[in-house]
Amino acid sequence: MRVFGHIPDTEVGDMFENRAALAKSGIHPPTQAGISGGAKEGADSIVLSGGYEDDEDFGNVIIYTGAGGRDENSNKQIADQKLERTNLALARNKLEGLPVRVTRSHKHQSHYSPVKGYQYAGLYRVEDYWCERGLSGFKVWRYKLVQIDSEPAAEVQDTTKARYEVTSRQAVTVNKIVRDYNKAKQVKDWHQYQCQVCGLAIDTGAGHYAEAAHIQPLGEPHRGPDVVENILCLCPNHHVMFDNGVFSIADDFSLIGLDEQLTLNKKHKIEQAFLQYHREHYFK
Amino acid sequence: MRVFGHIPDTEVGDMFENRAALAKSGIHPPTQAGISGGAKEGADSIVLSGGYEDDEDFGNVIIYTGAGGRDENSNKQIADQKLERTNLALARNKLEGLPVRVTRSHKHQSHYSPVKGYQYAGLYRVEDYWCERGLSGFKVWRYKLVQIDSEPAAEVQDTTKARYEVTSRQAVTVNKIVRDYNKAKQVKDWHQYQCQVCGLAIDTGAGHYAEAAHIQPLGEPHRGPDVVENILCLCPNHHVMFDNGVFSIADDFSLIGLDEQLTLNKKHKIEQAFLQYHREHYFK
Repeated sequence: MRVFGHIPDTEVGDMFENRAALAKSGIHPPTQAGISGGAKEGADSIVLSGGYEDDEDFGNVIIYTGAGGRDENSNKQIADQKLERTNLALARNKLEGLPVRVTRSHKHQSHYSPVKGYQYAGLYRVEDYWCERGLSGFKVWRYKLVQIDSEPAAEVQDTTKARYEVTSRQAVTVNKIVRDYNKAKQVKDWHQYQCQVCGLAIDTGAGHYAEAAHIQPLGEPHRGPDVVENILCLCPNHHVMFDNGVFSIADDFSLIGLDEQLTLNKKHKIEQAFLQYHREHYFK
Repeated sequence: MRVFGHIPDTEVGDMFENRAALAKSGIHPPTQAGISGGAKEGADSIVLSGGYEDDEDFGNVIIYTGAGGRDENSNKQIADQKLERTNLALARNKLEGLPVRVTRSHKHQSHYSPVKGYQYAGLYRVEDYWCERGLSGFKVWRYKLVQIDSEPAAEVQDTTKARYEVTSRQAVTVNKIVRDYNKAKQVKDWHQYQCQVCGLAIDTGAGHYAEAAHIQPLGEPHRGPDVVENILCLCPNHHVMFDNGVFSIADDFSLIGLDEQLTLNKKHKIEQAFLQYHREHYFK
């Protein structure tokens, strides 16, 4: 059975001499593959071993490159990567909110790599995935992994029925992007909280609810700006669909992947450069 | 103009001798009202002054009670509170993701209150709101406020066009409830990722997406258990509607507030005690 999360009797920072020892610990069961996972279940563990020229490691944030398309001998990217098998597994982590164990090899080039052997770096969540042309010019799938910093769980008293377990709590530090509330509000006001795709404005009884969806994502590595020209007003369903590349938007503002029409507003200018970024990186 | 967020030249921990000084600082403009806000704009600031018997203060988490229904002389709750005016303003903070400034008065009974005067406690987000019978037996609106811990923003290099501002970042510590992935997955599998209200299963191209919605919420003060009997499989839209009390579910599993039918599954037992909790606290 595939185990997600920490493995009993292991700790963040644990060192392993080789892949066999790492496999034996239960942290990363396969002895060769860099990704341990199934397309339907998700990925439980990855090993960073310097195999991909496109990986970027900022410690608590890692931009990880999917598998496939490399020449076995030269290790060079010679073909497009596909969103299948273990690449698809990592995408499922995002959809299910599943954590992935990360281990760094001494062969992985970063400030955080061990001098020799393998070091367990702890749990990361897959915040996002997208495709792009890698350094080689071929299409690669990339994943933004963000560390889940866990501290000892605080005790929580249980007042519910005894047969139910207590929900555990952990203090988690995240790099939260601070958005400008006014810009999101401005866009929602222009559209009267109606989804620009389906027209739904959820009436909560305490006013309407809609979401401000950034076209070129904020934060690393996309660095989309937090401006009204980069924001859409969407219902939660179409926000999820947009962020997962179910649909995208052409330069003439027609929808790609959906039959609906995008509702526009004269006051709300949308910049085409951001639409192009979304099409190239997110549309499947 | 109503200002959301920190006020320039003020800092968390700042002390003020009286309400006039606090108002002059810009932190809490009104000199009498406990909530500064408008029903359509949201609430920019509150003062905790011990007026409500139902308030609970855990420092970085505050369960705050809405305004109204009290006898002017005895300060006792003598009528139901309504979701209007400033109570509605605080609800909008949740819907818009707006921060609210919190100031504690020496009259507010908690470990965190100043010995005299008023102390600015910083920014909180309104994570949730609901209604319940208060200690007095009358209906009150309650709000779960969670502190936004801000640290100096890290510098982020901007590679986008120069005319756009850099998005700032802050390290934020949150008490994240650790959910059991397996239970959420189990419920979604039983329903094949189809929303139990509308039947939608969002196909992302990397598999289906649905959300596990807890009926009696996890965490303080609701303490709902993380068990399959307390979880529904919903699309994001119906998840938002359910969490905001647009609809609820009767003991016979018929929907209240929506015309649709709840799709049931023999394997998935839903416990009626949790449905009752949701109806009593969330349904409007």
